[in-house]
Amino acid sequence: MRIGLDIGGTKIRGVVLDDDGSVRASVRHATGFGASAVIDTAFTVVQQLSERVGLDCSQFSSIGVGIPGTVDIHTGRVTHAVNLGIVDIELGEALSVRTGAPVRVENDVNAAAMGAYHLVGGSAESMVYLNLGTGLAAGIVLGGELWRGTRGAAGEIGHIPIDPRGVVCACGQRGCLETVASGSAVARLWPEGREPSIRALFDAADHGEPPALKARRVLVENVASALRIIVLTLDVELIVIGGGMSSLGEELLAAVCGVLKRWELESPFLAALDIPGRIRFASAGSDMAAVGAALVGRGGHTLPETLEAAR
Amino acid sequence: MRIGLDIGGTKIRGVVLDDDGSVRASVRHATGFGASAVIDTAFTVVQQLSERVGLDCSQFSSIGVGIPGTVDIHTGRVTHAVNLGIVDIELGEALSVRTGAPVRVENDVNAAAMGAYHLVGGSAESMVYLNLGTGLAAGIVLGGELWRGTRGAAGEIGHIPIDPRGVVCACGQRGCLETVASGSAVARLWPEGREPSIRALFDAADHGEPPALKARRVLVENVASALRIIVLTLDVELIVIGGGMSSLGEELLAAVCGVLKRWELESPFLAALDIPGRIRFASAGSDMAAVGAALVGRGGHTLPETLEAAR
Repeated sequence: MRIGLDIGGTKIRGVVLDDDGSVRASVRHATGFGASAVIDTAFTVVQQLSERVGLDCSQFSSIGVGIPGTVDIHTGRVTHAVNLGIVDIELGEALSVRTGAPVRVENDVNAAAMGAYHLVGGSAESMVYLNLGTGLAAGIVLGGELWRGTRGAAGEIGHIPIDPRGVVCACGQRGCLETVASGSAVARLWPEGREPSIRALFDAADHGEPPALKARRVLVENVASALRIIVLTLDVELIVIGGGMSSLGEELLAAVCGVLKRWELESPFLAALDIPGRIRFASAGSDMAAVGAALVGRGGHTLPETLEAAR
Repeated sequence: MRIGLDIGGTKIRGVVLDDDGSVRASVRHATGFGASAVIDTAFTVVQQLSERVGLDCSQFSSIGVGIPGTVDIHTGRVTHAVNLGIVDIELGEALSVRTGAPVRVENDVNAAAMGAYHLVGGSAESMVYLNLGTGLAAGIVLGGELWRGTRGAAGEIGHIPIDPRGVVCACGQRGCLETVASGSAVARLWPEGREPSIRALFDAADHGEPPALKARRVLVENVASALRIIVLTLDVELIVIGGGMSSLGEELLAAVCGVLKRWELESPFLAALDIPGRIRFASAGSDMAAVGAALVGRGGHTLPETLEAAR
């Protein structure tokens, strides 16, 4: 049995995954702020999962962790996880020493992509998980395996500039896709909103408020752009949309497909690619990312040396 | 031994590739216009290659063909190869019947990508071949194998719109990358030019002619955009630039890297990706695409049934 941890800005979700791929236990806890609080909470989640299935922490085949920030998958080091108050921690080492189990740490979007592939991807030869959260990023699964790229930057499509006249992005470039197609784009595109959430924006647009209608149009068109970029580069069989914005489900799907269908009228080339037919949604609030983290842990024992040294 | 044919708008290049990957013979012929002329010329090239190495056509392990247009790699059918005057031909079947050898047909950019991987790619885990010819398209090689995507559209980055205010592309969309970063873009960006070639454009810009300077700046910036899109989606180890524009070699490289370095000053994120360090050039006028076609032929006997039926 394997443990998967999905460490997010507000909570840590943990699952125990059986060898047949089914979830045996599931736990969640509010994430603390700062390096030691994150490690403590993660360890607490592992302990509670252990109790649930009647094993000692060290008896799990692996612990896989998905976490935001820059992750060195070889060493388990995590840097720049701003939302978690983490500047630089040896998360893999810390967890493997405390639990006695081999740990593998992965970028949160990649971990969620593995979960999406397991739970939604079916037998697709290729799949992209498009995370529409605060930011916009994709995780790529080819032949059942994560494609991370040579420097872990594969799927960083949120930082492709798509409008030379756009605003400056946090990455320093101008007009990045993320500035117009993500949760963080809502507040900027719709400053009139009382509550700058995607749900509130869609509701206000449904009530016909012009600023909301305009902001929704920009947002939806650029999500469609993201899908088009994915297909025109990777041409994957399936695209699974997840993250905060995906909670809109059918509503978002209908809006995005409306844009794609309009584009298809002008371009038989685009129509032949049938982008709408490739889209699926991850069900919001599921254990998908934690399941994915458990699957990532399967990929090898990142920290056996550390573990041996600590024993 | 295997044969590789690179069928282009002006000539067909053919090579015989030894089992150790070295070129044993090389032939080129002017391509005729229209389906039967293309098949006849291709067959003539195969015959001449056979004579050179003292084998009968049917004794080759395979004949691989790279050709522009829409290619069904499973049947060897080619459609919409406009420059060759081809609407719809069963190229694989025609060639396998006439030569008695198994034939595999592949898109020209993908075939060139395999050649680039063999001749320039070294031991790279991942490589993109960026073809800057009349159009703009990429061939993707991951783990030594072509990644075609689920509908053969992987690498069609020339049709990613990058400017909502750009011109309408032949594909029906607006502001596609290909409209501002390809050989066909030169005549449009620089209507003042006597000879709308990339060489003439760079020369006029070197002489300080303002319209040429402007056109060159647009072209070079958008080639840099193409490289950035490749890295932010696939994050490949190497990018090999080929096609007509690549004949500019060091001159184009210096100009493109100048743009990338300027962008890097504004974005530490981009700087960390070191795009300039990943760029290589394919030597113009080489047998690279034909060698790639021969390697594609290695990938399986597409048309054994046709061949058996014809014998």
